[in-house]
Amino acid sequence: MNADLKFMAEAIAAARKAWGNTHPNPAVGAVIVQGDRVVARGYTQPVGGDHAEIRALKDFREQGATVDAHTVLYVTLEPCSTEGRTGACTDAILGSGIRRVVIGAIDPNPAHRGRGVALLQKSGLSVTSGVLESECTDLNLIFNHWVSTGKPFIAAKIATTLDGRIATRGGLSKWITGPKAREDVMRWRSYFPAIAVGSGTVLADDPQLTIRQQGEPERSPQRFIFDRNLVTFRDERPKVYTDGFASQTIVVTPEARRTAAEAFSQKFGIQIWSLNEQNGDGGIQAFLDHCIEANIYGVYIEGGAHLLSGFLRAKALHYLFCYRAPKLLGDHSALAPFFGREPASMAESVQLAEVKHESFGDDQLMRGFLRYP
Amino acid sequence: MNADLKFMAEAIAAARKAWGNTHPNPAVGAVIVQGDRVVARGYTQPVGGDHAEIRALKDFREQGATVDAHTVLYVTLEPCSTEGRTGACTDAILGSGIRRVVIGAIDPNPAHRGRGVALLQKSGLSVTSGVLESECTDLNLIFNHWVSTGKPFIAAKIATTLDGRIATRGGLSKWITGPKAREDVMRWRSYFPAIAVGSGTVLADDPQLTIRQQGEPERSPQRFIFDRNLVTFRDERPKVYTDGFASQTIVVTPEARRTAAEAFSQKFGIQIWSLNEQNGDGGIQAFLDHCIEANIYGVYIEGGAHLLSGFLRAKALHYLFCYRAPKLLGDHSALAPFFGREPASMAESVQLAEVKHESFGDDQLMRGFLRYP
Repeated sequence: MNADLKFMAEAIAAARKAWGNTHPNPAVGAVIVQGDRVVARGYTQPVGGDHAEIRALKDFREQGATVDAHTVLYVTLEPCSTEGRTGACTDAILGSGIRRVVIGAIDPNPAHRGRGVALLQKSGLSVTSGVLESECTDLNLIFNHWVSTGKPFIAAKIATTLDGRIATRGGLSKWITGPKAREDVMRWRSYFPAIAVGSGTVLADDPQLTIRQQGEPERSPQRFIFDRNLVTFRDERPKVYTDGFASQTIVVTPEARRTAAEAFSQKFGIQIWSLNEQNGDGGIQAFLDHCIEANIYGVYIEGGAHLLSGFLRAKALHYLFCYRAPKLLGDHSALAPFFGREPASMAESVQLAEVKHESFGDDQLMRGFLRYP
Repeated sequence: MNADLKFMAEAIAAARKAWGNTHPNPAVGAVIVQGDRVVARGYTQPVGGDHAEIRALKDFREQGATVDAHTVLYVTLEPCSTEGRTGACTDAILGSGIRRVVIGAIDPNPAHRGRGVALLQKSGLSVTSGVLESECTDLNLIFNHWVSTGKPFIAAKIATTLDGRIATRGGLSKWITGPKAREDVMRWRSYFPAIAVGSGTVLADDPQLTIRQQGEPERSPQRFIFDRNLVTFRDERPKVYTDGFASQTIVVTPEARRTAAEAFSQKFGIQIWSLNEQNGDGGIQAFLDHCIEANIYGVYIEGGAHLLSGFLRAKALHYLFCYRAPKLLGDHSALAPFFGREPASMAESVQLAEVKHESFGDDQLMRGFLRYP
């Protein structure tokens, strides 16, 4: 069992190389092991390309290796058993002669769940599943949500002091957390196809909302600016409208603002999504529908409090990342991340499920799925 | 080195048996090892009794063991070199014939620091120090503070939601954290000679403020109730005035309230500390002085926000325990732990130093020493 944990950890490391580059497909990693040694590796290629198992099998052959009775395939997600854009992975595994397969997470797609395992077992292969299952499932927050709901996965990040504040009373938030926690934020930014912020955050911080990671060129996800009153369209232009990634900026505003917004947007080459509200939801339902039309399967909301609270009240926030730093402001008027709910008891709080704890230097992260009362 | 870590961990486990029972002396643990086996153990006895090393040496002799060239003494704190109420531990070690001593933390008392190590080395013993130093230092938060400042150690505990709230807008706080985190609170309560709460907490929660741990009889530390206006002296008597531990309850109130307070207190057998304010400090300086006179070397403040904020503003809070639970209230009017500061930037926040992270089920703890800007 210890060997299984060790090699599944290697498969997870391989999967991380596909991090953020496979949506809406899952990021999967695979390794092929012989005699206590990893002989071949593979990870999911961008949509239309090889799945992880196929890549690992190709790598195996390129190494000139030969399958024997002790060759084991480790893969972070149950192999697919349906021919999609690529052939079924179960067919490739059966064809390879490998007799043992170790699987991390089972396919969350209700239509496929367990079929890959059953198919391999029916052909006489030894299959172990559920190895490092939680870590393997955690590789695909967006895919898991998408295949089971058909909707985009909406996550939010907050960084607070020990007393739960996201900025001073004057709106200053640089910096609450330290460099290691901010690197982790960059890592998650790089996973999500889109970032969203509210107009207040643009005016207060003028953020870049790009992905800046050591050794890699700066790049940009889709950048949503929620701006109901077009207050960010002022003379001193924010970076998100004027930097080299302006074409990836999308201003989200009510349908009534469409004309004003489009006149402005054409000058800068940014996009406008003008949305109809439904039952006073601030256009959130229409936003989710638009995301799917635009092939955006996951959104990472970085604040501020108005945007976060709007999604929370609409129960449209699925996942929350809460960093906290070892400092206190001690000020009732310092800014809080959420408002607008009025729970009468602790039982009416919004709960996190499948909670994970991590540390980044002196900062802590708690993250999990939101469960609404 | 791995053996040193392993046996120091055993010495720490021994020290924990003295947890809370040695003030103002440190809780120390010692083990004597021969041939990769712990032969004898000892921990600090209550004031006037044996130190840990002496107990371990007595245990060693009682086992009929004999010191040989490979006998090693592990002790969590540098052995004392001065004859206090008990003989100097360095003398006992030298007399035992043991030739190697492994030490966790060096004595924090500026007058003794390093003297025990020097004495043993001068006599030709091999001494290793600093093994699991942080864990060994952490055993004696109260002693470490007391010997270096001559003042009581004031710590506070808060339990918050992810959005930094300690209760709903209606004051309900049961429960924010889960059973494992609450057990940890009981463990820290049992370390401190005294607990303190404000009058609002007594009225809202009617807490017992006793120590309830599995397999042990309920007991009570000194229980301070800070009650400026004697609002807790009403018809429906709080538990802290009427339970079997009322004689350990002390109401802290301004000098001007002395007569009213004493009339009430005599009926219930509780104590009154009537204190003079200095420079509008709410009597905090006088409280600290009174603690020393009463041989109370550490106080664990459990809330509410008024009491916590008063100590924070007076910079009289030395240590903070911050538990947080995986839930959100999302209500601006829910209760916050601290108020009254007005930091203009993040740099003016109160920082935690020597930060420790722990997990209790799904709850997180962050704790450390407060550093005021």
